[in-house]
Amino acid sequence: MDFFTITHKDKNSLARTGIIHTEHGTISTPTFMPVGTQATVKSLDTLDLESLGAEIILGNTYHLHLRPGEDLIANYKGLHKFMNWSRPLLTDSGGFQVFSLGKNNGEQGRLVDIDNDGVTFTSHLDGSKHRFTPESAIETQHKIGADIIMAFDECTPDNAEKKYIKEAMDRTHKWAQRCIDAHKKNQSYHGYRQFLFGIIQGAGDKDLRKESAKIISNMKFDGIAIGGESIGYNMRATKKILDWISPIIPEDKPHYTMGVGFSPMDLFEVVERGIDMFDCVAPTRIARNGTLFIKSAGVKNKFRLNITNSQFKNDKKPIDPECGCSTCKSHSRAYIHHLFDAKELLGYRLATIHNLYFFLNLMEEIRNAIKEDSFLKLKKKWDNI
Amino acid sequence: MDFFTITHKDKNSLARTGIIHTEHGTISTPTFMPVGTQATVKSLDTLDLESLGAEIILGNTYHLHLRPGEDLIANYKGLHKFMNWSRPLLTDSGGFQVFSLGKNNGEQGRLVDIDNDGVTFTSHLDGSKHRFTPESAIETQHKIGADIIMAFDECTPDNAEKKYIKEAMDRTHKWAQRCIDAHKKNQSYHGYRQFLFGIIQGAGDKDLRKESAKIISNMKFDGIAIGGESIGYNMRATKKILDWISPIIPEDKPHYTMGVGFSPMDLFEVVERGIDMFDCVAPTRIARNGTLFIKSAGVKNKFRLNITNSQFKNDKKPIDPECGCSTCKSHSRAYIHHLFDAKELLGYRLATIHNLYFFLNLMEEIRNAIKEDSFLKLKKKWDNI
Repeated sequence: MDFFTITHKDKNSLARTGIIHTEHGTISTPTFMPVGTQATVKSLDTLDLESLGAEIILGNTYHLHLRPGEDLIANYKGLHKFMNWSRPLLTDSGGFQVFSLGKNNGEQGRLVDIDNDGVTFTSHLDGSKHRFTPESAIETQHKIGADIIMAFDECTPDNAEKKYIKEAMDRTHKWAQRCIDAHKKNQSYHGYRQFLFGIIQGAGDKDLRKESAKIISNMKFDGIAIGGESIGYNMRATKKILDWISPIIPEDKPHYTMGVGFSPMDLFEVVERGIDMFDCVAPTRIARNGTLFIKSAGVKNKFRLNITNSQFKNDKKPIDPECGCSTCKSHSRAYIHHLFDAKELLGYRLATIHNLYFFLNLMEEIRNAIKEDSFLKLKKKWDNI
Repeated sequence: MDFFTITHKDKNSLARTGIIHTEHGTISTPTFMPVGTQATVKSLDTLDLESLGAEIILGNTYHLHLRPGEDLIANYKGLHKFMNWSRPLLTDSGGFQVFSLGKNNGEQGRLVDIDNDGVTFTSHLDGSKHRFTPESAIETQHKIGADIIMAFDECTPDNAEKKYIKEAMDRTHKWAQRCIDAHKKNQSYHGYRQFLFGIIQGAGDKDLRKESAKIISNMKFDGIAIGGESIGYNMRATKKILDWISPIIPEDKPHYTMGVGFSPMDLFEVVERGIDMFDCVAPTRIARNGTLFIKSAGVKNKFRLNITNSQFKNDKKPIDPECGCSTCKSHSRAYIHHLFDAKELLGYRLATIHNLYFFLNLMEEIRNAIKEDSFLKLKKKWDNI
């Protein structure tokens, strides 16, 4: 069976529905993937995620490498069994976090050293030294055992000079081939097939992005990801980049924007440009700060309600009266407000359930609209809320 | 229907099984009651509590009075609806917390002023002044709407002088009558009947405890509680006190030791002495510190395993191989260890589920043993683990 099957193409945009097949089950695309950084989507159990209908979740290789370590996870026959999640998993390569460390610490407290062979970095947990190479990043991901794994890439800051962006991009392309070679040798480490995606870099430079798109598209990857600091964080830049590369990347492979999903409209923007997969920590992170998604019109910040606001202290309505999640079916704004006010752990869980349901439910709405060729109509409807 | 029905008396001890009837359902006794201080059993949803088979949970009047306030809760027709818990609830009177504040702050930073009419205290949250009298404590509990509410009492420190213990006890008895009078006027505030329990005080003094037991037993309470600083915290004192008063208190009313449940054996000790109800924050509080109950023999601290210990880093066994809780059915010690190591919120929930299941399951075992007149045999079996 093919890894990826396109089931319907929208007549009016690049949006498409599809199915990704893995040995841990299928994923209906386009799909939003909740982030489970440290072998848990923060505050949720895997049963919660199943109830929410999540078909795939992410783990972060950087974090899992540091704690509990890939060898321990391998000892449990992979992350699925370690965290008791039977559905598909994806791991990033660790590159994004490693390079974020370097950026956050600037030139002085530099925690990251890049050379052409790989990257040496210092753990944010205990200051210990670690090294990722393309080969070791793949080996680490083999041991973790996600169904979809990512090539090790260098993610350049948006404000880097073109010369550096080009240098890093060329390095990323060389690493990409080394990742493919390393993966080929052992692509069923735990007995089931893992699929490897390549990552297009090139920051905000049109020529470099197109060059990277061509090179990554011509390599033997199972899927094509679009990486970079601005992807997701800066939707204007994201849309521009997608418009440059979408004519280049192969149609028959899944397309994945890494880091998209701060707001409901962001999902529409990338789906419209032919993207099949995306992940973002925002829905779960902002939930833990009390920022909850809401469809209803008339809220101050479109689609967002801050439950810690005192106006909700005595509000008997559910978070979103139109929402069907277990939090909205069972609890009032007043109760969630109280839980946040009292810093009760339950508040974080109920809020996370709500935000993930909101996104996963919206994805289903989007998939249904694509199938009926009414995707742009649905987008317009949400735009006008 | 009677509020309390005794269904079986053990032939070899004072242990008995019974059923408490409330408008929110029945409670099989003897029962351990999980503590939901601020309208949530920390880290758990009410669905979790239902799955665990909890038949009654506690709220703390002191905390609920300060946040979100009894008027707000009354506006939701009581705590059941506010927190979405359909089964029975019990609230304490706030006395214990109010007097703990006084003790913790000593004479200097005194947060508590006691007079014969009531107590003025300072909120630990914002320093605001509050006052509880017997009448206001009952009114507050009416508004909160628990099925079982408690008389407002003065809980004296163990190290107080006899003169002061006697003075406080006499005050508690006067307050007890005022609570009965206040309750009589409005015992179905939200439309369903609430039941009022009196509290025996007298610290560690035999004569005073017996006097208090006589006086409280002769008042028109629906149940008899045994309060005091040492109850639960000091099991030697607790057993002694129960031995003094058990011949005095009426057999046909439920008996409640407030604060018992630090260890499995504590449950046996009070049940053996005819106690029907008890609550304790320990099982849930220690769970959040990684201390988990275990039945298996051979652990260093009897019945306790500290999951944060590095020996569990790579341990594939469930917390307790004999346990049937959802945590033990789904997760390894290694995974829970990792969650605590990474300070992941999920760890607190999984640990809390385990410890509560352990206690609630043990209670069922105890009830079954009583019915078969083999309670002391079961106690001995657990004693020998």
